[in-house]
Formats: sequence, structure tokens, C-alpha cells
Amino acid sequence: MGFFSKDIKTLDDLFVHTLRDIYYAEKEIKKALPDMIEKATSTELKNGFEMHLRETEGHIDRLEQVFEMHGEKAKAVNCPAIDGILKEANEVAGDIDDKQVLDAALIAAAQAVEHYEMTRYGTLVEWAKQLGRDDCAAVLKKNLDEEKATDKKLTVLAESSVNLAAAE
Amino acid sequence: MGFFSKDIKTLDDLFVHTLRDIYYAEKEIKKALPDMIEKATSTELKNGFEMHLRETEGHIDRLEQVFEMHGEKAKAVNCPAIDGILKEANEVAGDIDDKQVLDAALIAAAQAVEHYEMTRYGTLVEWAKQLGRDDCAAVLKKNLDEEKATDKKLTVLAESSVNLAAAE
Repeated sequence: MGFFSKDIKTLDDLFVHTLRDIYYAEKEIKKALPDMIEKATSTELKNGFEMHLRETEGHIDRLEQVFEMHGEKAKAVNCPAIDGILKEANEVAGDIDDKQVLDAALIAAAQAVEHYEMTRYGTLVEWAKQLGRDDCAAVLKKNLDEEKATDKKLTVLAESSVNLAAAE
Repeated sequence: MGFFSKDIKTLDDLFVHTLRDIYYAEKEIKKALPDMIEKATSTELKNGFEMHLRETEGHIDRLEQVFEMHGEKAKAVNCPAIDGILKEANEVAGDIDDKQVLDAALIAAAQAVEHYEMTRYGTLVEWAKQLGRDDCAAVLKKNLDEEKATDKKLTVLAESSVNLAAAE
């Protein structure tokens, strides 16, 4: 969630702060995905990451919509959590030579990213409802549902092919 | 997952590396929880964190068991992901004066931690199975199931009381 947390006095402030946190995270994920696409060997995995890149762009648009609905300027705050998750993904993926093992590591990294997004969107949807902003909750839930669906697809892909190939 | 990833040549190496990653993460979580217990205002939340601290100790024991079953020395590697998640939790929790809003932020932070653990254990269980280590998978699944249960309890607590109080 980063700095300026001293300005958080109400649940509404916390909601806006966390919107800014996930807005930053989505933008960082958008920057990280092309590299993951390039590193992936499995065609299915490459396609999956490409689809997720397009979805991520849609998530950023929806977040901007929520900022506007809530009367706030779309703004990002530093998010050490996503920085750490992506740093770890880069470190581990950068040094694996075996293509199949690398694919398995890339899926694990992508699922760590998905889980971070799922937890933040899950929280934001609940807070929006508590604040009487069911309209914002509905938009945020679309992002949450897409993240959950992506995570499930990655699990299926890992179980059905990538991990099998990596274990050979 | 941290450094030494250059040594990852096989799925077995990746499995051991990720075991070391979550071993580090669990130890950091064990260190972080007493501060969260102290900061929490809601008795239910305090009790929930206290229970999770005891569970975390059990998770560390189970990980040591898996290391032993797999013929590896229990060892931790740096995990930038959990460092980032905990840094963010501290930053945001350190500067909120309103007790109810702080409780809502603490739950969100704890759920981010749970989601990180869930994704790593989910991956480890699958990899253990691919490696023909159903025995290790079974032990790791116990940790996974407890993390999922804790996450659900936190959601119920947030929805039923903490967020309501924070929104007042």
C-alpha cells in the first residue's frame, strides 16, 4: 500500500488507498507480462499470458472507471508487495536454462501474481459494499472474477501439460 | 524465490528451492504476527491471529518434515515476495489511528499473506505429485488446507463485523 498511509482516517480513505495500490500493481503486471510471454516455451502458456495481458489492460480501464465513479483522480501508489512478487519471479525465471522447468516456474510466478490480485480485489469488493458503493463493487468484481478464472486456467495448464513436461 | 536460482536445473531443484522460499516466508510470518496481534482491537481478530501464530509454528514443523522426507537439509532462501507483502502491511498498519479502520487494514494484510502461502503450497503440492512424492504432497496439503481455512475465517470476520465497524 505504500506511503501516505498517514492520511488514512476512514474506511473510505483505505478503500481509495487500496485502489491506488492495485492500480500500480496492474500497471507493473502489464509491464512484466511481455517478458513472461517471451520466456514461455509452451504455446498454450504463451497464449495464456497474451490473453492475460489484454485482460490486464481491461482491468486498468475498469479501475480508472471506479476512480471516476468515486470522484477520485486515478493515481498509483507504490506497492512493495507486487514489487517483491515480480522481483522474485524475475530472479527465478532469469536463471533456469531448461525450457520445461522454466515454464513450470513461470506458471508458479503468474499464480503468485494472480493470488495477490485476487486478495486485493476481494477486499475492495467488500469495502465498496460496506461503503454503500454497490456500483463500484460490481465493476471491481468483474476484475476479481477474471483473475480467478485466469488462476484456474493456469492450474489446469500446469496439471495437464507443463508440470508433466518439466518432470520428464 | 531469491538467489541461487542458477542452480535450478530440474523440477526437483525448483521444488526444493520453492520449499526453501516458503520456509523463509513462514518464519517471517511467525515474526510478524505478534505485532499484528498487538495492533488488532477486535477480540475475535486478536484470537484469530493468535490461532494463526500457533498454526504457523505447525507449518514450519511440517516443512522441516518434508525437507527430511526429501533428503534435504531444512534451509531458507530470501523471498522478496513475502518481504514486500509484510513491508506493505507494516507501512499501512503503522499509520492508521482509527482502531476499526486499522482492524480492516490488518485483515486485508493478513489475507494478502494467506494468498501468498496458498499459491506456493498449491504449486508445491502439484510439483510433489509430479515428482512421484505423494507422501510430501500429503504433508504440504495439510498446510494448504489450513491456509485456505484461515483465509475463509478472515473473510467471514471482515464481512460480519470488522468492516461494518470500520464503515461506521
